[in-house]
Amino acid sequence: MDTHLNTRTKVGLIGLGAMGCGAVGNLLAKGFEVVGCDVRPDALDWLQAQGGTPASSLAEMAAQVRIVVCFVVNSAQTEAVLFGEGGLVGQLPAGAVFIACSTMDPGYVRALEARLSAHAISLIDAPVTGGAVGAARGTLTIMGSGTPEAFEFARPVLQAFGATVHCLGAAGNGAQMKVLNQLLCGVHLAAAGEALALAKRQGLPLDLTLEILSSGAAGSWMLADRGPRMIAGQFDNVTSAVDIFVKDMSLVLDATRESRFPAALAHAAYLAFLGTTARGLGAQDDSAVTTNYELT
Amino acid sequence: MDTHLNTRTKVGLIGLGAMGCGAVGNLLAKGFEVVGCDVRPDALDWLQAQGGTPASSLAEMAAQVRIVVCFVVNSAQTEAVLFGEGGLVGQLPAGAVFIACSTMDPGYVRALEARLSAHAISLIDAPVTGGAVGAARGTLTIMGSGTPEAFEFARPVLQAFGATVHCLGAAGNGAQMKVLNQLLCGVHLAAAGEALALAKRQGLPLDLTLEILSSGAAGSWMLADRGPRMIAGQFDNVTSAVDIFVKDMSLVLDATRESRFPAALAHAAYLAFLGTTARGLGAQDDSAVTTNYELT
Repeated sequence: MDTHLNTRTKVGLIGLGAMGCGAVGNLLAKGFEVVGCDVRPDALDWLQAQGGTPASSLAEMAAQVRIVVCFVVNSAQTEAVLFGEGGLVGQLPAGAVFIACSTMDPGYVRALEARLSAHAISLIDAPVTGGAVGAARGTLTIMGSGTPEAFEFARPVLQAFGATVHCLGAAGNGAQMKVLNQLLCGVHLAAAGEALALAKRQGLPLDLTLEILSSGAAGSWMLADRGPRMIAGQFDNVTSAVDIFVKDMSLVLDATRESRFPAALAHAAYLAFLGTTARGLGAQDDSAVTTNYELT
Repeated sequence: MDTHLNTRTKVGLIGLGAMGCGAVGNLLAKGFEVVGCDVRPDALDWLQAQGGTPASSLAEMAAQVRIVVCFVVNSAQTEAVLFGEGGLVGQLPAGAVFIACSTMDPGYVRALEARLSAHAISLIDAPVTGGAVGAARGTLTIMGSGTPEAFEFARPVLQAFGATVHCLGAAGNGAQMKVLNQLLCGVHLAAAGEALALAKRQGLPLDLTLEILSSGAAGSWMLADRGPRMIAGQFDNVTSAVDIFVKDMSLVLDATRESRFPAALAHAAYLAFLGTTARGLGAQDDSAVTTNYELT
């Protein structure tokens, strides 16, 4: 890699969901040009309205950029974006950097780095935490990993949408940290659902209950963020779907199996998400996990 | 009750543990006189050094005060303080107010109010949240309940050691809210132990892991407060013991049974505390719950 990025650099961004849109806003605000790609036409319209450049195909994006940020949902979508029909591999220039922000299996990520390296593409494994709120505000924490050279090349882009950028060593380490992060996120989210559903069952005033629980030792980021949505009971406005947590907690369960680690809380939380999906709510907002406890 | 309290009022305080000592500090700082009682002589020495007045018996306290704050561990100790040999009942003046800050079964609390009322003593059911840190800083949230008259009488005292004082209606409602609060505290604490023990098993750098997990959507009050103690692995410096959470989560389990509410996470957390106690660590700091997952 011969040069450093500057803020006129064009950055490719794939996946204009809640997280990707937040990253776009911060990249644009910091002077980057953003070429975006998404399967939904309305997402591309949104991007154009923000001042970004919609790309109608990955090939059209690949012709313009040598650094790509990917905010798709999972490893299957990442695989499709890279190696699927019309995918980036073979179209991105040699020396390009691919920043994968999805929550994925660490083993898959480690193998992916080697596969991309064979095509002269560097992988930055860079899952994030801070939620849609953090993405919008540019306050995400980035659990980055990858080669030092690729990481330094990508750093200005990472810093544009993350307030704290960690470099955790070889690619896959970021994914490993993110799985641990999701263990707590999933447990806290399901626990918020459990507590607020119990409060409802007991006839407690829910707004006051949430205020009290959030104010002291019972507080969590998830309770504060998802609690109001749980109380409102409207799960159609989807920030992140129940199915995402079924997937993320599955990665947690895989990690605990590999480590021979009896994580009882993680398993209980997984069952709460799975039960919510089983009742047909998998595509609803993940705050719908509270309905798993509303059995009457 | 004929008068309001003023800040020269003598306040009785029973139970000079981490929570009680924090309350003493704030009461003294706000100009109240504090008459304190504890079974440990060194706690009374501490009180004297702070400018408070040690009482060598409950009778000695009862002769000086008509409002008492009680920070003992549980309902058994509360029962002993009130109705045991040499207890307050029969010694406190008519019209006295007893502020019970312990985490107790709501049913016990509701019955207690009636029993005290027969002795012309008003009960304020006032469990707190915010931990030892909150007690020391005067930032506790108080889940108060009791009759409006008794509550207004007690309010200046409550406001001296709580930043936010809620009045939730009849005595027992505070206890009910506290049980719900402990559901989340216990789950979050056990989850912090689960996540950090898994990080240790996987060989991740623990200080950095805690920093990252605390910074985003995985954050909780418990993780931030107990995480450093878990990493240090020193559980002899006891702020709150494992056995306290065995007791508190038992109250949670009772509540979920009464409500016919399948709280899977609460039960998993309970088992983590019970397992820690079963390995002989019940009197250690509750951050020792992480050792429940360190099986090698």
